Amino acid sequence: MSDITLEQARKAVEAAEKKAIEIGTKMNIAVVDAGANLKAFARMDSAWLGSIDIAQKKARTARYFDMPTGDIGGLSQPGGSLYNIEHSNGGLITFPGGIPIKNAAGEIIGAIGVSGSSVENDHTVAEAGVAAIQ
Amino acid sequence: MSDITLEQARKAVEAAEKKAIEIGTKMNIAVVDAGANLKAFARMDSAWLGSIDIAQKKARTARYFDMPTGDIGGLSQPGGSLYNIEHSNGGLITFPGGIPIKNAAGEIIGAIGVSGSSVENDHTVAEAGVAAIQ
Amino acid sequence: MSDITLEQARKAVEAAEKKAIEIGTKMNIAVVDAGANLKAFARMDSAWLGSIDIAQKKARTARYFDMPTGDIGGLSQPGGSLYNIEHSNGGLITFPGGIPIKNAAGEIIGAIGVSGSSVENDHTVAEAGVAAIQ
Amino acid sequence: MSDITLEQARKAVEAAEKKAIEIGTKMNIAVVDAGANLKAFARMDSAWLGSIDIAQKKARTARYFDMPTGDIGGLSQPGGSLYNIEHSNGGLITFPGGIPIKNAAGEIIGAIGVSGSSVENDHTVAEAGVAAIQ
Repeated sequence: MSDITLEQARKAVEAAEKKAIEIGTKMNIAVVDAGANLKAFARMDSAWLGSIDIAQKKARTARYFDMPTGDIGGLSQPGGSLYNIEHSNGGLITFPGGIPIKNAAGEIIGAIGVSGSSVENDHTVAEAGVAAIQ
Repeated sequence: MSDITLEQARKAVEAAEKKAIEIGTKMNIAVVDAGANLKAFARMDSAWLGSIDIAQKKARTARYFDMPTGDIGGLSQPGGSLYNIEHSNGGLITFPGGIPIKNAAGEIIGAIGVSGSSVENDHTVAEAGVAAIQ
Repeated sequence: MSDITLEQARKAVEAAEKKAIEIGTKMNIAVVDAGANLKAFARMDSAWLGSIDIAQKKARTARYFDMPTGDIGGLSQPGGSLYNIEHSNGGLITFPGGIPIKNAAGEIIGAIGVSGSSVENDHTVAEAGVAAIQ
Repeated sequence: MSDITLEQARKAVEAAEKKAIEIGTKMNIAVVDAGANLKAFARMDSAWLGSIDIAQKKARTARYFDMPTGDIGGLSQPGGSLYNIEHSNGGLITFPGGIPIKNAAGEIIGAIGVSGSSVENDHTVAEAGVAAIQ
């Protein structure tokens, strides 16, 4: 199992932060490692306090299932095949903003979770973090 | 109370694992006893980390109510008679993948929970585990 | 980061179980991977129900700090330098029975936790599990 | 209320990290703001997984009571005036490694928590983080 380094995690957080500034948002940004354990975190000044937990849960959720969090949210709606999956694992977040991080070889080495604005913005900022590693 | 033995639980896990390999999936497989307490567990290499908890919750949910987890999920939807039952018992999982295990006499002696793919695949693999005991 | 395989985890559980039978005890045996996530678990017939959680917490505690759980317990006593560390990480177990698992190269790839008898017996059984991998 | 900025929090984390390298340790470093909410976090490569939570709990504990965590630990021992205070607030850590962070004017603007080695080393590294801000 390949695992993210602190240097890579920082690179992801900083790229995400740069994107957040660029689009005029204030974000909480969390990076977990291959084992879904917290590696790096930053809360931009004046970013939502409630997003500290959400950013971390998004990062963990993305690594737990090796897919963007929004993909799970599409299936966890009423009538969906994964309805109320959010009750597992001490609480999942299944709307966009969490994305697995891969290395150059395509292996998943961790995940990033972003929270602090619309889910579209959260996802955009997370993507910038992911792109900084590959 | 008839109760599952470790030998039976292992047989169920191994049959489930064999089926998982056969259909090309990587699963988390949990077996609980008649008291809904964990008896055996195996996570196949590269199976989802988020399914460790879900497989166990499916097994417990199936034994808590002595029915396949998906049957409960049909009743826990908005407007349904068991709406949001997932909030009980420290978190239930009510989509398919959990099935009670019976002995040859038809008594429920435990349950199996499988998670790691589509709910259809999870259910198929759980069925293989159940069939290995009867 | 090297990680334990299911085949290795099973080998550890089975070696531990064999030792448990040899010394006339009934054990709960848990193995976690390099990320401290559950990989395999078995509860021997008639083993303590309360040890399901303790075995898992011992395995996680051993991997969390890369040392035998009893080493931490020596420091967490009243007046010790780590007094009440057990309040962290959702609950640690710091008496003997949890040991890191290394591969042939000496890298830590997971940990085993055993609970069901005296802490001396728990530790002895855990050691048998560890020895089966190296 | 004066509050720590992300720039200051990062400065504290980086100074702590530099000290950790200098004394040959691998640390988890957490900084919380004036509201005791997580602001920045970094886990050095190969640092203990169990210290992710402890570093954060130390930082929160130091800000909760505006004193170094070790000072509380002196009072929470059996027979002490704050015996078992660790049961509050979802779990406190009261051994050394958490210190309030003050600004140049002497106001407390947050706290740092460090975990990954002996409590003496944890405290030394936390002090380096605090010193970087004043």
